[in-house]
Amino acid sequence: MGSNSFGSVFRFTTWGESHGKEIGVVVDGCPPGLEISRERIQEALDARKPGGSAQVSPRMEEDRVEIVSGLFDGVTTGAPIAMRIANRDVDSSSYERAKSVLRPGHANFTWLKKYGIFDYRGGGRASARETAARVAAGAVAEALLESEGISIIAELVQVGDARGKEMGRRIERAMTEGDSVGGVVEVRCLGVPSGLGDPIYEKLEAKLASAMMSIPATRGVEFGMGFEAVTMRGSEHNDAFIKSDRIRPESNMAGGIQGGISTGEEIVVRVAFKPTSSISKMQNSVDIHGESVEIAMGRGGRHDPCVALRGAPVARAMAQVVLADCLLIQKSVCNISSRVVSHEL
Amino acid sequence: MGSNSFGSVFRFTTWGESHGKEIGVVVDGCPPGLEISRERIQEALDARKPGGSAQVSPRMEEDRVEIVSGLFDGVTTGAPIAMRIANRDVDSSSYERAKSVLRPGHANFTWLKKYGIFDYRGGGRASARETAARVAAGAVAEALLESEGISIIAELVQVGDARGKEMGRRIERAMTEGDSVGGVVEVRCLGVPSGLGDPIYEKLEAKLASAMMSIPATRGVEFGMGFEAVTMRGSEHNDAFIKSDRIRPESNMAGGIQGGISTGEEIVVRVAFKPTSSISKMQNSVDIHGESVEIAMGRGGRHDPCVALRGAPVARAMAQVVLADCLLIQKSVCNISSRVVSHEL
Amino acid sequence: MGSNSFGSVFRFTTWGESHGKEIGVVVDGCPPGLEISRERIQEALDARKPGGSAQVSPRMEEDRVEIVSGLFDGVTTGAPIAMRIANRDVDSSSYERAKSVLRPGHANFTWLKKYGIFDYRGGGRASARETAARVAAGAVAEALLESEGISIIAELVQVGDARGKEMGRRIERAMTEGDSVGGVVEVRCLGVPSGLGDPIYEKLEAKLASAMMSIPATRGVEFGMGFEAVTMRGSEHNDAFIKSDRIRPESNMAGGIQGGISTGEEIVVRVAFKPTSSISKMQNSVDIHGESVEIAMGRGGRHDPCVALRGAPVARAMAQVVLADCLLIQKSVCNISSRVVSHEL
Amino acid sequence: MGSNSFGSVFRFTTWGESHGKEIGVVVDGCPPGLEISRERIQEALDARKPGGSAQVSPRMEEDRVEIVSGLFDGVTTGAPIAMRIANRDVDSSSYERAKSVLRPGHANFTWLKKYGIFDYRGGGRASARETAARVAAGAVAEALLESEGISIIAELVQVGDARGKEMGRRIERAMTEGDSVGGVVEVRCLGVPSGLGDPIYEKLEAKLASAMMSIPATRGVEFGMGFEAVTMRGSEHNDAFIKSDRIRPESNMAGGIQGGISTGEEIVVRVAFKPTSSISKMQNSVDIHGESVEIAMGRGGRHDPCVALRGAPVARAMAQVVLADCLLIQKSVCNISSRVVSHEL
Repeated sequence: MGSNSFGSVFRFTTWGESHGKEIGVVVDGCPPGLEISRERIQEALDARKPGGSAQVSPRMEEDRVEIVSGLFDGVTTGAPIAMRIANRDVDSSSYERAKSVLRPGHANFTWLKKYGIFDYRGGGRASARETAARVAAGAVAEALLESEGISIIAELVQVGDARGKEMGRRIERAMTEGDSVGGVVEVRCLGVPSGLGDPIYEKLEAKLASAMMSIPATRGVEFGMGFEAVTMRGSEHNDAFIKSDRIRPESNMAGGIQGGISTGEEIVVRVAFKPTSSISKMQNSVDIHGESVEIAMGRGGRHDPCVALRGAPVARAMAQVVLADCLLIQKSVCNISSRVVSHEL
Repeated sequence: MGSNSFGSVFRFTTWGESHGKEIGVVVDGCPPGLEISRERIQEALDARKPGGSAQVSPRMEEDRVEIVSGLFDGVTTGAPIAMRIANRDVDSSSYERAKSVLRPGHANFTWLKKYGIFDYRGGGRASARETAARVAAGAVAEALLESEGISIIAELVQVGDARGKEMGRRIERAMTEGDSVGGVVEVRCLGVPSGLGDPIYEKLEAKLASAMMSIPATRGVEFGMGFEAVTMRGSEHNDAFIKSDRIRPESNMAGGIQGGISTGEEIVVRVAFKPTSSISKMQNSVDIHGESVEIAMGRGGRHDPCVALRGAPVARAMAQVVLADCLLIQKSVCNISSRVVSHEL
Repeated sequence: MGSNSFGSVFRFTTWGESHGKEIGVVVDGCPPGLEISRERIQEALDARKPGGSAQVSPRMEEDRVEIVSGLFDGVTTGAPIAMRIANRDVDSSSYERAKSVLRPGHANFTWLKKYGIFDYRGGGRASARETAARVAAGAVAEALLESEGISIIAELVQVGDARGKEMGRRIERAMTEGDSVGGVVEVRCLGVPSGLGDPIYEKLEAKLASAMMSIPATRGVEFGMGFEAVTMRGSEHNDAFIKSDRIRPESNMAGGIQGGISTGEEIVVRVAFKPTSSISKMQNSVDIHGESVEIAMGRGGRHDPCVALRGAPVARAMAQVVLADCLLIQKSVCNISSRVVSHEL
Repeated sequence: MGSNSFGSVFRFTTWGESHGKEIGVVVDGCPPGLEISRERIQEALDARKPGGSAQVSPRMEEDRVEIVSGLFDGVTTGAPIAMRIANRDVDSSSYERAKSVLRPGHANFTWLKKYGIFDYRGGGRASARETAARVAAGAVAEALLESEGISIIAELVQVGDARGKEMGRRIERAMTEGDSVGGVVEVRCLGVPSGLGDPIYEKLEAKLASAMMSIPATRGVEFGMGFEAVTMRGSEHNDAFIKSDRIRPESNMAGGIQGGISTGEEIVVRVAFKPTSSISKMQNSVDIHGESVEIAMGRGGRHDPCVALRGAPVARAMAQVVLADCLLIQKSVCNISSRVVSHEL
């Protein structure tokens, strides 16, 4: 339980609101003996921070991370690793004006329905700012994955219906028009050994799908050939096995996962992000009393025309944590069974 | 933990192999006082059972469920509800011949990599037969949902690139050719109150995505406009709020979920199923020693040309369990908070 | 969650009522490659079964266990291991007469308060019969522990205020008088390596305490010197370290656990059981309508004068499961860290 | 999972080492709408802080708590509540000298065995300082319990073999002699409604026992008559039911819990604390290389002669969290079932 935690053995918990004092995260279950520097975490955060390009929100956070526990002489000790990022640039005056408005595409309506109370300043806890904490946790996971030769890449591969160089222009055009546009992020996991993920309900796809759909603004997730597999025949989609240096699937339609367990091939996940909800175009809505209002959210505020751009490092971080978790779970299985079972493969 | 369990407060655990004695499930956390009949469970199972049409596998299971605990005079008591379905028709001779073959698109390779041992008879634990246990659990959840006015529908909406009446012909053609074809199942949840699902990592989409991707042969999942949202503008995709009998979103691009919490509108989920892996067409592969083999899996065996057909009731069952779980979680939140907070909405 | 489950990585779930069809258990997370025979499970059950001596209840169950999943050629596969014990001797007529009576020392009052419904036949789910399922799970854990050189002993060490040979006479006397008597069970774990258990909230004592206090009729649990440590000085109770073949504590006041983690010495746990609640002496109480009643529970029924006698194998089983769980958790920590950290000890 | 977290629905996670920057805690699952002031948390911390009397360690922390998230206008929002207490007085020089010594009765041996690395300064993560974070979490739980009319008391009832006024003299004498002494803390929960706690493995005793045994220096826990129940007859120990204003047990031998579920009577728990391990008397031990050493731990350091004194507010905090958790879990059960089942009691 705990809706602000993610992972089972490698597990993190986040806190903090968009316009509160800080965003924080505590990582539990990280093995001892890993070298983790503040710089590693900072570097990961810099890759997602706002203000980095013309295409993302001009909010001028430094996003400077502080590691407050869990390290001794720069090495993990098995104790929980807590990290915090102060919120320095907290101008919530623009939110004050519109605090009773039910913003189209935003979560304040459902939070009010659920909790009867909502920290309206900048989206509060529902803000994408929470994802900075995920990136910090992902950077810790990355240190563990690196020690096992696993690396993860995430990139924007589609904006609107454009792929490739055309993508940037779509973002610019949406921005010019005071509007926003959706995108697809592709995550690829390299060097993953076979055997990660657990059958039935803890399948690698199930865990990755849960991880990706927990990112704000995501609308779908697919693996390998994904939705395109629907239009294929079994004879096309089945990955036959061959023997080269080792036995392996010849093709990788499955995207590196078979029966919920990694095959040893590249894992391929794609995540669909909706167009950013906060746009400067005028929109109609009502306030919490049901009175009609017009609202332009992105005008005085600070928003991105394509939230998928900043979704890429977050999707990467979530994949890092999922794989670190699966890796630790798998260690116990194979450490026991290697003594008893002879692997013929 | 426990890769054979699903859910948190409403939680079930399954066991049993395709060609073992039985498939079973135990449901924990079901509230007391619900009327559950064996017939209700049986009816749900009959909707997924093989042999029901010309288009599914001819395996002639009766799939007769027995409820062995948790009821007293036909009413739930709060005790765990265990149910079992005997495996009567267990001819594993056809599997014996091919036991060392690494079947294209199947999980025996990854299970061997993970566990060093595999019950090769009919897919063992990895077989889709395990999903019968999910359907039984879903039928228990349904009784709880009904008492709250919630109902769930699942149907096949696409086969290959066909929608509507054309779908049946695609399945038939694939079968005739000894091949298989993929499909999309759409799940719709009606009567869901606003407020279900928990922010950040236990978002309703995250739980539903995990649930769907735990079903064998799934390759992707999407919500509301899904991957199509990528090509939309924010001004198109944002659901503005209106006041009719109550305050609600005017459109439902979000598919009934905003910020991970139900809006009170219809929840729409679509699941992509790959083409069935077991086909009677001859395929190349290798055995566990790396020797080349040719294999035709569906010939003597018993398989479906379109696994999505039988995926629909399973997807429905998983959605039932997710919503029952979220409903119970939400009860504690609002039961406390209703005393303290005044809901203006 | 799931109040009918125990354990995290090595985890089991039980079901079944005292007078229902069966008692069952499913063990999830057991590593592959372990040899498990039906005989091993049966032997463990025989050690707790009623009817074994003059001093326990004459209920004539065979308690014959059936393994229904999770084994292939007698070896675990990583799949869930389900086991069932049929209830053959279910005479609930004696309970029918007293169904509305609130029995002194029994759980029917609190279950009614919690659930509003109670399966009154023989204690239903609250019956000690549920513990047979725990013993079956413990026997699976035992196979894992054996492979690591760990063994667990449990014995009755006190009855009333008597220890040693006097204990049997106390039980007999209580039985003759239509009354019952309490007892203390001591559990000792041999061959446990150092390093099991996790700091802070998953301490080995915390997990064992939870395990023991989940057994019906337990009233207390203590470790090492236990409550007697209260009367000691630090200079007496502190275990100093020495170097013999290895560095180790010279004494074992701590009972094999320091800071929640095993020291490598014998683990010593003692569990207090209250006198059996069901006695044939006449007692006063009220029924659910508040009317005064007299009740003699053990007369026509089938009960034990000293429930601690049968508590010993159950306490042993729970300790087996806790250690199996800790062992699997620890494997992931040390398997990773051994590459990075040099253990000086 | 997560050995630094406690609770299921109401759940908290702690971080921080004794001589690091801070101790922190994040509480997840607290319902919205509760008024929580910094002063409430501070008051709870003041009751456990060192330096408060001649009988506890002279470490001069202010233990000033800061609430960094989860409140809006002084009211909980349903978001995680993070709190931090800075470590201001961190003199670790005295630990530097003895860093390789295996201290008798301390956890550095087992932590080294488990993790291969240990933050030796002041006990690091294993220090009792971590319990300040628990007290802060307990104070949040208290606000929830108060809203339901539940209150919890904890007091030292035994020191060595003394009870009552004699206790203070035992502590003084131990201090004078450079030694330490054990104690018993009694926790009593008042106003607890019947129905809290869940049968079988989530029994109220099991959760409380786990909570208490997670506190450093605890050696045992007992409920109601506890170990004394062993010497009683069933006819003495059974709580008969009577009808006064309501149906209730006439006596309370069971200590407010029957079958793992609260009866509505006062809940009574007693916890045994060992004598403090850190004493200024000279003790023999070895260092991590096996060389003999003499060590006097409490001399230059800062320690308590009777750790049970400071254990009382911690035991109270843990009981508060357990009951808050059980309360939230129970809400979902009864909120559903009240519609369906008629409670005759």
